Amino acid sequence: MATLDDIAKLAGVSPTTVSRVINNYGSLSEKTKTKVFAAMKELNYQPNSLARSLKGKKTHLIGVILPGVSNPFFGQMVQEIEDQLFKKGFRMILCNAGSDSEKERAYLRMLMANRVDGIIAGSHNLGIEEYQKVGLPIISFDRYLSENIPIVSSDNYHGGQLAAQALLASGSEHFQIITGANRPNSPTNARLTGFKDTLAKRDRTFDLLELRFSSTPNIKGLKIKEMLLKKNVDGIFCTDDLTALLVIQQARELGIKIPENIRLIGYDGTRFIQNYHPELTTIMQPIADIVTMMIDLLLKRIDDHECQLEDNYVLPVKLITGETTI
Amino acid sequence: MATLDDIAKLAGVSPTTVSRVINNYGSLSEKTKTKVFAAMKELNYQPNSLARSLKGKKTHLIGVILPGVSNPFFGQMVQEIEDQLFKKGFRMILCNAGSDSEKERAYLRMLMANRVDGIIAGSHNLGIEEYQKVGLPIISFDRYLSENIPIVSSDNYHGGQLAAQALLASGSEHFQIITGANRPNSPTNARLTGFKDTLAKRDRTFDLLELRFSSTPNIKGLKIKEMLLKKNVDGIFCTDDLTALLVIQQARELGIKIPENIRLIGYDGTRFIQNYHPELTTIMQPIADIVTMMIDLLLKRIDDHECQLEDNYVLPVKLITGETTI
Repeated sequence: MATLDDIAKLAGVSPTTVSRVINNYGSLSEKTKTKVFAAMKELNYQPNSLARSLKGKKTHLIGVILPGVSNPFFGQMVQEIEDQLFKKGFRMILCNAGSDSEKERAYLRMLMANRVDGIIAGSHNLGIEEYQKVGLPIISFDRYLSENIPIVSSDNYHGGQLAAQALLASGSEHFQIITGANRPNSPTNARLTGFKDTLAKRDRTFDLLELRFSSTPNIKGLKIKEMLLKKNVDGIFCTDDLTALLVIQQARELGIKIPENIRLIGYDGTRFIQNYHPELTTIMQPIADIVTMMIDLLLKRIDDHECQLEDNYVLPVKLITGETTI
Repeated sequence: MATLDDIAKLAGVSPTTVSRVINNYGSLSEKTKTKVFAAMKELNYQPNSLARSLKGKKTHLIGVILPGVSNPFFGQMVQEIEDQLFKKGFRMILCNAGSDSEKERAYLRMLMANRVDGIIAGSHNLGIEEYQKVGLPIISFDRYLSENIPIVSSDNYHGGQLAAQALLASGSEHFQIITGANRPNSPTNARLTGFKDTLAKRDRTFDLLELRFSSTPNIKGLKIKEMLLKKNVDGIFCTDDLTALLVIQQARELGIKIPENIRLIGYDGTRFIQNYHPELTTIMQPIADIVTMMIDLLLKRIDDHECQLEDNYVLPVKLITGETTI
């Protein structure tokens, strides 16, 4: 079995440099990285060979890759993952990938080096190939990653339907949806489709405002303000609650009253929003159930890498009615 | 060196049971746990002996123990820790201890078993002895844990002073502080002292409402409502921003206007609050600087366990003025 020293020799660098490349530490030239990766490939080096040499013993570590934990939705999800994993004797290595695909790629490599037993992935950056290469049990949250990686999500299409129904019932006539920029393979696009189909049945259309996931709240706020000033809108669906808070903020500054002038509905329904913004009507994702399902599937795969699982596991959403649509 | 098998033999249980005790997994009787711990002690077993047998190689894993990441303050702190550790080639095992001292104790044991290089601890549950026993580099956030464990915090006393000055300047005369239940050894008590001393210099006093950290927002909201109904208060200092949001919520329901009837100031000033509640006057803790300092000190200790560090590192806070005190 190849060792760090073998790779170092073949790549013509020191073992420390090899370790740095694997751990993504220190300033390394692209040339050095390429040489080391080539040597690793040639010698078929698996960073987790240490694990194998320990007779396949579990590390009880799970890698969790998400966009970022300072968002209350992922904050609650991470807390739930941590808590449920703890009860089953596992620990979590938390990886906030942000919108940085290099970081996500580096994390995948490092999680292999740390010999995690499996990965829960809910990030947006990498294509299919990278996840196919990992060779570890993976469960995905709300994203298509690769064949044979099960996706757990909530019922995004029905969530969109519920949002449209709530706005229609509130008497709105001029509809606006505010959502992240469209991504292929993202099941969250179904929120938009569910909304659209429900309005279409009643011969209604809507305007679309796309805001990049990576934009700052100040920039999002500015675009929302422009929209509120220009358009004759009285029913707004935001595909996440934080954006709905920005609509409330901008409306207040412009003297637009919610729900008198505009009805508003968000999406996610975290405990944080329910506690600190109970006025907001929203679609609640069942975070605890999603996490239970992901961990259940992941542990099955860890026990038996070949076990057969479904492609999709879809959990129900709920409408939580607050004052913004009444 | 003692192995799992040695311990199992001495304790009269199976190696699997020993592994479960170390990993805190499955239902185990107290009797079994006691026997296994006694055997570990007798044989002087260190769960991280694996690490030693690997010639003291670093794992590049850091354990982070905090109350819980669904709170935006700790959410931002964890994201910052993760990001800064990543840039230095380390990964984070995240441990949300909540208010559960058993869980925190189990995590300390497991972090040793996972051979982390060091620990960042900001939780409230355990006494001094447990942290003294760990034998790993530890840096504490805002809590006294043990002699020779440096504490990094922001200037809680000055934060309390700034809050009092802001309320005095806004013309308030009847002061109320809403804070967590008092804990010995908690530097956050200094927020209260700074507030009190500043008011005392102007011959003012204040009323104190203590809310347990572990209470739900609904229960906290109820107690705030009672207070608002009973007392003649026109200046409120909450020692965290989320409680200030509850004051805004309750005041709105009671028809009390902020800042006209009551001036309000919070504490923490996370990015979340600044983005989504810019109206709230607050004291901002420098989260990024706190994290930089903690990681810097921790890596020093990891490189040299005996290196001499200060007992306290105190970073400056800032007043962020919003509409709630104007």
